[in-house]
Formats: sequence, C-alpha cells, structure tokens
Amino acid sequence: MAAGRSLRSLGLLLLGALMISPSALPQEQRPLYLMPVPSSIQIGAGALPVDASFSVGFSGYTEPRLDRAVQRFLRQLSRQTGIPLGLKPITGSKPVLVIHTEHASKEIQELGEDESYVLEVTATGAKLSAPTPLGAMHGLQTFLQLVDVSPDGFAAPAVNINDRPRFPWRGLMIDSARHFVPLDVIKRNIDGLEAVKMNVFHWHLSENQGFRVESRKFPKLHETGSDGLYYTQGEIQDLIEYARDRGIRVVPEFDVPGHSTAWFVGYPELASAPGPYEIERKWGVFDPAFDPTDEKTYKFLDQFIGEMAKLFPDHFFHVGGDEVNGKQWDANPKIQEFIKAHDLKNNQGLQSYFNKRLEPIVAKHGKSMVGWDEVLDPTLPKDIVIQSWRGPDSLAAAAKQGFRGILSNGYYLDLGWPAARHYAVDPMTGAAATLSPEEKARILGGESCMWSEYVNWENIDSRIWPRNAAIAERLWSPQEVTDLASMYTRMEVIGDRLEWLGLTHKTYYRQMLQRIAGPSSPEEFAALRTLASVVEPVKNYTRHRTAPSEPTSATPLNRLVDAVPLESAAARRFGELVDKFIAAGCQDPASEARMRAQLTAWRDNDATLQPLAQQSFLVKEVSGTSQDLSSLGAVGLAALDFLAKGQRAPDDWKGQQLGVLQELEKPKAQLLLMPAPSVQKLVEAASTSGACSPPN
Amino acid sequence: MAAGRSLRSLGLLLLGALMISPSALPQEQRPLYLMPVPSSIQIGAGALPVDASFSVGFSGYTEPRLDRAVQRFLRQLSRQTGIPLGLKPITGSKPVLVIHTEHASKEIQELGEDESYVLEVTATGAKLSAPTPLGAMHGLQTFLQLVDVSPDGFAAPAVNINDRPRFPWRGLMIDSARHFVPLDVIKRNIDGLEAVKMNVFHWHLSENQGFRVESRKFPKLHETGSDGLYYTQGEIQDLIEYARDRGIRVVPEFDVPGHSTAWFVGYPELASAPGPYEIERKWGVFDPAFDPTDEKTYKFLDQFIGEMAKLFPDHFFHVGGDEVNGKQWDANPKIQEFIKAHDLKNNQGLQSYFNKRLEPIVAKHGKSMVGWDEVLDPTLPKDIVIQSWRGPDSLAAAAKQGFRGILSNGYYLDLGWPAARHYAVDPMTGAAATLSPEEKARILGGESCMWSEYVNWENIDSRIWPRNAAIAERLWSPQEVTDLASMYTRMEVIGDRLEWLGLTHKTYYRQMLQRIAGPSSPEEFAALRTLASVVEPVKNYTRHRTAPSEPTSATPLNRLVDAVPLESAAARRFGELVDKFIAAGCQDPASEARMRAQLTAWRDNDATLQPLAQQSFLVKEVSGTSQDLSSLGAVGLAALDFLAKGQRAPDDWKGQQLGVLQELEKPKAQLLLMPAPSVQKLVEAASTSGACSPPN
Repeated sequence: MAAGRSLRSLGLLLLGALMISPSALPQEQRPLYLMPVPSSIQIGAGALPVDASFSVGFSGYTEPRLDRAVQRFLRQLSRQTGIPLGLKPITGSKPVLVIHTEHASKEIQELGEDESYVLEVTATGAKLSAPTPLGAMHGLQTFLQLVDVSPDGFAAPAVNINDRPRFPWRGLMIDSARHFVPLDVIKRNIDGLEAVKMNVFHWHLSENQGFRVESRKFPKLHETGSDGLYYTQGEIQDLIEYARDRGIRVVPEFDVPGHSTAWFVGYPELASAPGPYEIERKWGVFDPAFDPTDEKTYKFLDQFIGEMAKLFPDHFFHVGGDEVNGKQWDANPKIQEFIKAHDLKNNQGLQSYFNKRLEPIVAKHGKSMVGWDEVLDPTLPKDIVIQSWRGPDSLAAAAKQGFRGILSNGYYLDLGWPAARHYAVDPMTGAAATLSPEEKARILGGESCMWSEYVNWENIDSRIWPRNAAIAERLWSPQEVTDLASMYTRMEVIGDRLEWLGLTHKTYYRQMLQRIAGPSSPEEFAALRTLASVVEPVKNYTRHRTAPSEPTSATPLNRLVDAVPLESAAARRFGELVDKFIAAGCQDPASEARMRAQLTAWRDNDATLQPLAQQSFLVKEVSGTSQDLSSLGAVGLAALDFLAKGQRAPDDWKGQQLGVLQELEKPKAQLLLMPAPSVQKLVEAASTSGACSPPN
Repeated sequence: MAAGRSLRSLGLLLLGALMISPSALPQEQRPLYLMPVPSSIQIGAGALPVDASFSVGFSGYTEPRLDRAVQRFLRQLSRQTGIPLGLKPITGSKPVLVIHTEHASKEIQELGEDESYVLEVTATGAKLSAPTPLGAMHGLQTFLQLVDVSPDGFAAPAVNINDRPRFPWRGLMIDSARHFVPLDVIKRNIDGLEAVKMNVFHWHLSENQGFRVESRKFPKLHETGSDGLYYTQGEIQDLIEYARDRGIRVVPEFDVPGHSTAWFVGYPELASAPGPYEIERKWGVFDPAFDPTDEKTYKFLDQFIGEMAKLFPDHFFHVGGDEVNGKQWDANPKIQEFIKAHDLKNNQGLQSYFNKRLEPIVAKHGKSMVGWDEVLDPTLPKDIVIQSWRGPDSLAAAAKQGFRGILSNGYYLDLGWPAARHYAVDPMTGAAATLSPEEKARILGGESCMWSEYVNWENIDSRIWPRNAAIAERLWSPQEVTDLASMYTRMEVIGDRLEWLGLTHKTYYRQMLQRIAGPSSPEEFAALRTLASVVEPVKNYTRHRTAPSEPTSATPLNRLVDAVPLESAAARRFGELVDKFIAAGCQDPASEARMRAQLTAWRDNDATLQPLAQQSFLVKEVSGTSQDLSSLGAVGLAALDFLAKGQRAPDDWKGQQLGVLQELEKPKAQLLLMPAPSVQKLVEAASTSGACSPPN
C-alpha cells in the first residue's frame, strides 16, 4: 500500500480494515492503534513476538543519549507488557530489534532537523533506521504503540513504516506561572510529548501571578515574586537535559512588557507606575507594564536575558508581548510625552518601539525572538517568530510579510473543547491555503497551550491528555488524516497507554471524586461517577464569568468542575448510539435497548446520590445537576416509548419536553449536561412525522 | 465516655453510634474513620472547620524533624481536601492547631520510647500534646484521619483523644531480595506505615535470589549477587533518615547461614560446598549454606556485620537463621567430622554452634541480634529477639525462657488471607495469655511480612494495603477492639485515604486490567472488572504448587492472579447480603432485589467478556473462571426463584446444584471464585425446610 495517496483512508484502515492487506492472515487482523498516524505504512504477514528474550542492538552511529533512550524504551515495554526485560544483557544471540543511525544530530537541537525514520517489523525481527537519533527515538515510540496483547502473547504486527513529520515545530506550552507546576509533573508531561512525537516544550515562566525561575543576577525576581514556588537553575538544567534526551527543545517564555506584576514586587522601578507591587492573586488582564521609555528597563532586560540565554540553550527565546492594556502608560505623563516626542502615535506604537529595542537584545544573546501576535510589526527583522493566539489569518498575514509563525489559536487546551474541534484546526487551511510554497514554509507548525488558571498538579494531566495527542497528530501526520471515529478510537487507547509513563490523567479522577464524595458506599460512589461521566465544565472563558465568587490562585480546585474530564466519553458514545438509531429509521432494537438501559440508569441515579449530597458540600453543589440528569433520563425514555409504539408524539408534548431540555442545557455549578442535545434528537424524532421512517 | 472499659463497643461506636454522645448535635453525628482505634476517645460538640486559614504553631520543645513533619502534614491535609495550604506563613493570628512537646526523643530511635499523645479538637481550635515528637507525629496522623468533607466544608469533629500503643514493636517486613523493590516504592510504604502508626520497617536484604546492599568491604556481594539491582549506601542512609523522620526504625536483615546463594556468587569459599554459584532464579528452600566450621566464615561475617552495623544505626540487627535444609552440611565430610568432634549431635546442633559464634560478633558491633524461630537456643544470651514465623506458641515458649519475641505467624501478607483472619491473630492469646506479667512484657509486638515471590513494583502496594492497616490496629489498639464490621468499614475508608500518600494499591489495578484486556470497549472492560472483582488468588503456598510452569524471578507477573486484590470486597459484601437475607427468614425484598441484580450481572457477564478472550491470551486464561461465574449466577438465581415461590427445592435439584458448586470451587488459572460459598447458602436455604422460616 502506497504512502500519501491512500492516506485519506488510513485513519479508518488503522482501526479495523487491515484485512485488505492480502498478506495478512485472518488471525492477525488486529487493528493498529498508532497516534500520530505515520506518513506511510505497509502491513506485512505475521507478528513479532515480544517476550523475555526481547533485546535491542545497535549498528552505525550511536551515542549515550541513544543508550538511554533504549533503556527507557525497554523499561516502557516492560511496563506495558509486564514482562521483565533487560535484567541481564543478552549476549551471543542476535538482537530482536536493531537500531541503525547514520550520524549525530545537532549538539543543541535545532528547528528543522531530520526527524524521519524507517521501521520494519517482520515475524522474526525488527529494524529501525534513521539518519540521526532524533528519528530513532520517534521510531522507538512507534514500536511501543505497535506492541499489544494477542491470542498468543504480546506481539508487534509485521509492518513497514516510513515516517516523517509534516511540521518541524510541534509543541506544548505549559503555564507554570499562574499555578506553579512541580517539576515531576513537567517531566511526566515531557514523557507524554515524546510518546506522541511532539518536539517543543514551551515553558511560560513569568506572569502577574508568579515569577518561576531563579535569577542569580536579580534574585528578588524569584525571592519576592514566587511565594517560594520557583525552579532553581539546577532544576532547569536538569529539565532541559531530560527534554533533550527525548528529542524535545525547551523554549522559555518571559512575558514582557505586560503580564509582569510579579517582576515588579522585587523591582518596582521597572514598572510604568510607582509601587509597591504585590503578587497578583486574581485572574485576568492587569495594568502593570514595564516602562518602555526608561533606559533602565533595557539595561535590566539585557542583563536578565543574557543570564537566561545562557541557561536555556535553545535558539528561540519567547518574550510574550501579549495583552498590554495600556492603562499605566496612559496614566503616566512622562510616557505620554515620550510617545509624542518620538512620534509613536499611541500605546501600540510604544509597544512596537519596545519590541524594536528588545529584539536586538535578544539577538545579541544569540537568540531568535518569539512573541505572541501583538509583537508583529513589519519593521522588525524577519528572524522573529509569531505565535498566533488570535487566529490562523494573522499567521498567514505574517507569512506573507516574511515572518515565520506557529499556530496556537484553536489549540488552547484550557478552553474545554472536544478533541474533534482541535483536530479540525489545521495551520494550512483558511488564508494559509492560498500562500505560495515559500510562504507556506514559514508556517512552522503549532503549539497546544495549557493556561493554568484552573489547573494544578492534580488535574493538569487530565486537561492536557489525551486531547493533546489529537493535536500532536494534526501537526505530525499527513493533512489528509482526518477521520474522527478513527481518531477517537485511537486516542482512547493511547490515553490508556500514556498512563504507563506515570501520567495521571486517569488515576487522579477517582481520587478527586472520592474526596468530593467522602466516605461512601460502592453504590453511592458509582452514582457520583455516573453523574461525573456525563458532565463537562463550561467552555471557553465562561468559567471565570460564572464563578460563584471571584476565583484566585488560593481558590481550591476540588469541585466536580475541577475533577471531570473536559470531554465526556459517555456522552459522545450515547450521541453515536442515538445517531445510529435514528439513521436506522428507529428500527434498531439493540441500540434501543442500550439507550433505554442508559437512560434508565440516568433517571434513577439521583435517588442513589442524594444521601451523599446530605453529607458533602461538594456533592450538594451538584445536586441540581443530578436532578437534571434524572429529568433527562425521563424525557429520553418517554421519547423512546413513543418511538417504540410507532406513535407520533403530540406537539404539546414536544413543546413541553423541549422546554424541559432548554432548562437542562443551562449550566449549573459550572457544569454542562452533555447528553442533552442527543436526547433532544430523540424528542424530535418522536414528534416529527417521517423523521424516523425506516431507511429504504 | 471512659477509656478501656467501653472499648469493646468502640469499634462499632466509631462506625455510626456517635449519637450516643449526649453533647453531639444531630447534624454532627458523622462516623469517625480512625485506624488504628485510639486507646481512649471522647466526642465533643461541633467541629473544627478546615479551610485556607488553617495553620499550625508550636509551643514547648521543637526540632527540625517536627517542622518537616508539619510540612508533610500540611501537604497531606492539602491533598486530602484540595485546599491550598501553607503558601504563605500566617503571621499575627493564633494558629488553629498548636503542637506542644516536652523534650526530644532519642537520637537513634529506641524500642519502647514513649509514643503517647493527647489530641483535643474543639470547634475553634486544636491542641496536640506529647512528651516527644514521636507522639506528636502519631497525633498528626490521627488529626488527618479526623478531617473529612461535611455539609459545610471540610472539618474535624470535636474530640478528646488520649492515645498510646499497646505494643512497642509494630512492624512491616518487606523482602527486597526475591524481587527487587525500588526505593520509591519502599518510601511510599514507609509513608503508609506512618499513617497507621507502625514504627518498624524490617528490611529483608539478602536471599538466594539476590544481595541488595552495596558493600564496600566485599563489593562482589552486590556486584555479582544482584543483577545490578541493589541499594547504594547513600540510598540506604537516605531511607533511614526518611524513616526516622516518620518515627520508624529500620531493622536490616541479612539472612545466614541459609538463604544465602547470592552471597556465594562472589564469595564461593564461604559456602559448605564448592562453587561456582549463580544467583538463584527459582523459589523455595535451597541447599547452599555458610560453612559454620570454617573460621573464615566468622572473620568475613565480623567484617561484614561491622560495616553494616555502622550503616544501619538501629540497635537491632536481624540475622535470619531460618530454613537451613542441611544438605550441603550432610554432603561435606569435613563438616560432619566437625559435628562429631564438637559433640554437636546433628545439623541443628551445628546451627546452634553457628548462632553462638555469631551472637558475640553482632553484640561486639553494638547490636542486639534478632532471628527467626530457628535461632532459639536456651544457651544464647537473653538479649536476642525471636521473630516467630512458626506460631504464637513458640513465642510464648521463648518468653518463658526469658527471650523477647515478636509475632509474624498469622501476619504473612503474601498468603492471601482476608484482613479478618490477620485481625483475629493476637500476640497475647493462646499460650501467651497464661504468661506472667513479666513474661508477657517480653512479647514486644509483631510484624507483618511481605515476601516477594509474587510481587514487584507494580502490585506490591496492593498486597500490603489496606490489609496491613488491620494488623497495625491489632498491634496499636486495645486488645478489646475486635469488631469486624467496624474494622472493614474503616479499613476501606483508610484504604482510599492512603492513596493521597502516593501508594498505588488502587490505581495499579485498572492499569493491570487494561494490559490484560488490551484495547477494549467500555462494556468489555467492565466485564473484565466484574470478573476480577469476585476472584482471589489461591491461598497460602498453593500458588507455587499449582503454577502452570515452574515460576522464577523472570516470570512475568501480568496475569489476572497478579492483578486482583487478595481480598474480594464484592464477594464479602454479597456474603453479608446473603446472611442478612437468610437471617430475615428470606423475607427481605430489598436484599433479594440486590442479590438478584448481582447474580444476573454475574450470569450474563461471560457473554460480554468472551470477545476479549479471543483477542488476549491473558483473558483467554481466565475464560473458564468467567464461565464458572456465569454458572454461579444461574445457580443463585434458581435458588432465589424457589425461595420467592416459597417452595422447598427438591433434593435432586439440591444435589445437582451442590455438585455444580463443588466444581466451581476448584481453582482455575490459580483463582478462586469467592462468592461460591454464599451461593451455596442460598441453595441450602432453598432446599432445607425451615432453614428459611421468618424470624419470630
């Protein structure tokens, strides 16, 4: 099977259509769960057993990093299968997997290095070839995804994979500033990035709410700006090594001139208004900003960036540059005078001036500057990179002006979008589709963003994973890979697998629910789980707007809205069931039985949950949502009753039910009842003549 | 409410009977989940809110260890509640919890130090008083267990607790030798010990299968005897500090003269038969033993114990001494000649000789010798401590002879006993009950033992927890605390709470099941969970005898028998339901409905599971057990049908069903189907006239 051409079908193929490969024997037709989908894959005959005799050997170029990658690979394979591996080096026998690389990658990982690899698995062995260790590391991750339990033991199916990324910049940004994210949490997420072949960790390190890096030049930054929650330089060096070992670049971000209150706690003289300043505890856009008219700002930033440029070896250095509200500038006569005197027109002109002063400082320390949309100014050198949070069109516009860019609009993990919605966002669509090849090449890729107003060490993994795997696939796999059903099936399997890395996006959940429930019977706890399984937090920025009291960094994140995953798999599956039932002209007894069981469980759930609501304020808070779920189950069952009898439901019934549903769709306790729209489909099918006639 | 006297009822009281306290208001009658049960507790009025303003202060003696304990306490409280605590030190206001200690505990923690504390919680504050930090640390753990979610937020009920341990030696032994146990796993288990107030970690460090400590004097011990899996001396020092910080002594065990193959890989000259030796991979009792007739054995042990005595500061040093099969001694003419020449009679006499040579060496290095039953010899100094694996009578016999002892018989966690059975084992019952007070004082306590043939990093926590909490209670709480229902209810809650420490006895489970299942639908996976929830591994040493092939240290521990908990909560609860139903004369519609739902789910479970059995060899292995569960459900439903109709089932039906049940009770895939005896009760009730007549 050829590459590129057949890729539109590959998503599905990877699910269950491997039988089309003529060489595969029937008993070997197990689906593959690869994510991201490789750029080319050919299915062979048979499968390679993975047992205690599994071993890895090298040919060609090797380096200690590759040894460590293989150690990690063996440990991971051992966890995944439960087979002790690598206890004793196997000598004298031919290794099962041979890794061949040609030469070293760059000492400091660079944008655009060759990350390709070829992985050939047969029933008797495997070979992984790559120009450099970077590709070999990607190939090892693919091999791990191939290995699964089979009727005869663990095995990897025979395949021939030829793989390379679509974009050279595939990143995740974590905001360690609003909520501090402990180093071990960062590390396990880096492991996750490696597993899905992302290659950039963008570390948002300063904010109004915290300055998170030890500065030896300006120690008051971390001493007064962090509540003691910061990374030492030693920890950062360690993290950078850790990431490099996994083929991942670390791009630091220090956001200036806005988003900078925490800097001014120790250094108020840098701000545009007199201090004193305190660490900001609330969320939002705040007034404090550097004074771009004062030379000591540039002297300070020169020294500071010089220090950080040494600490972070990557060639790119992110200066933020977003969301300056300009209030401090407006209020400062000296600054307004400066704007006039330098003919800068307005605050935007002043920010351009600031960026034009900043860029040579960054460049002087050997770095290319990265900034959010707002830094874009046609007069800046073309070396800078624009990170677009505003939209894909701004990225295309930048590319037309000669700037490189990365897309983050559409990839904000904190907004609670379903994976499908992120998956549909492609950096090359819209205005970008019409760019010239040269301009297109300036679109380097994208980054998912984990802003941390509502995440901490406990739930952050669940806000990143598994949805980030869908974004990783968008940025690695061919553009034609878009099948949603395939993506969801593979994402769920990969989501389970990622737990072997120590990610806690699944394990955290029961513990948070148990805290909410308090001591409870298995039935009561199951009822809480049932409720939790069908709700999602309110989307976009509604959480902030609908908060019961103004949220701050001291607000506990222990409510149901903090615990439930951002995407309800149960609601999605119920929706699929409803769609299937209606598409079958409502003549699908198996689906009907399953819907009926589900709706009955929902209807009856509240009665079991209520005793817990009497005991726990955290359950009491969602009591209304629980009653809504009960109503939802009842409405759905009534609709099914009409459909079962083949009667069209009367209009007044329909009106009444839609009224009930409309009420249920209003968020309560900042939670959305996700199956409501699917139940509405049932109501409409029951009350519309012909809406549910059997297919021809 | 007074102490001691009312303690027989305390177990129940802690469950739900707090309403008997006249001062408690109705809305505050929440059960307490304390484990171990304190020696005295008085319930007050109201509850102390725990919110972001919670703070801790000191009066009296303090030390850095206590500061660290409070930091740990706050972190734990923060995890348990989800409330950020201790971000900023709260100054100027009165601390919510004041800790008062009188003086330091011993520099090196000693057996029998005062561990008592008094904890007084009111609606407005809490005070914890203890003679030394040891008691204060216990009190902090009690406070953590008091805090729970309430209708108005998190809170600790008002109580007055006066608490001290019943026994001074309350330990857990972990065998790090058969399977190496990584240091982080040891650490989280030490955290668990602190939570349940155990105070000894007994570390079994050498075995036929591995020598796990770096020896600088004899480096071939760890270099050739460990497959590279050993603890460095730095790691051990770190672990000892870690344990001391938690009020826990570390007693090392180096097992001699048997169980010692791994020593001889590097030093074959110490053995009683010529080498070469290899690390043992199988389980059992093996021939290799030190040569007690050769002076170089004692010279070696003197130097080795000297090195280890410095590394491990505890006053006790465990030399093992168990299970020497004597075959090497029998086969060595020089040794047999020595036995004759020294009038030692037999191998047992030779081992006594060895111990008599060993004890002064241990004493010379400042330690008291501990050994398993076999080291007991009336002519040894009374300073030694006997650890009884054979039975409580040997402990009483030793006490009569003037030796101190600790009980482990009855506390072997690897045998798969239910918590109730461990809980019933009391060091002071049987022969011990008749000892004089002076003799009784020689019974220091007990130790649970986690032998590691069938555990590794992944499932070890689940073999220790939560059952170890029941043993911890036996050794701490007053002897009268024996109520089983109370114990189980509290143990399940404490089991959930222990997870906040990072113990994985619950989280590991879904991951192991997912490995077994491979990619699966939610329904299929639920079916595997249902099956897993009602089976237990075969008990005692049956696992070894019934293994499909001879197990070794390289055997994967990835089967269902490795994954399921050692005690099925679902089977226990079903049994309670059946007992309740029968006790009600089979006239209990609510219980009947629940049993019927449960039995129906079991009957129908296999149909959902079968597709997975086609895909995964690990599911296929338990296919027979799954079919048995289906039969079990059918039998139970048939019995309920007879009971519902009020008909006595015919004798031939009874015989047939009992025959079926007899088959189902035979282990398959090394698993026992735990609800079978309860279903048998239903069959007997249905077919015995009068067995189920309504109560008068």
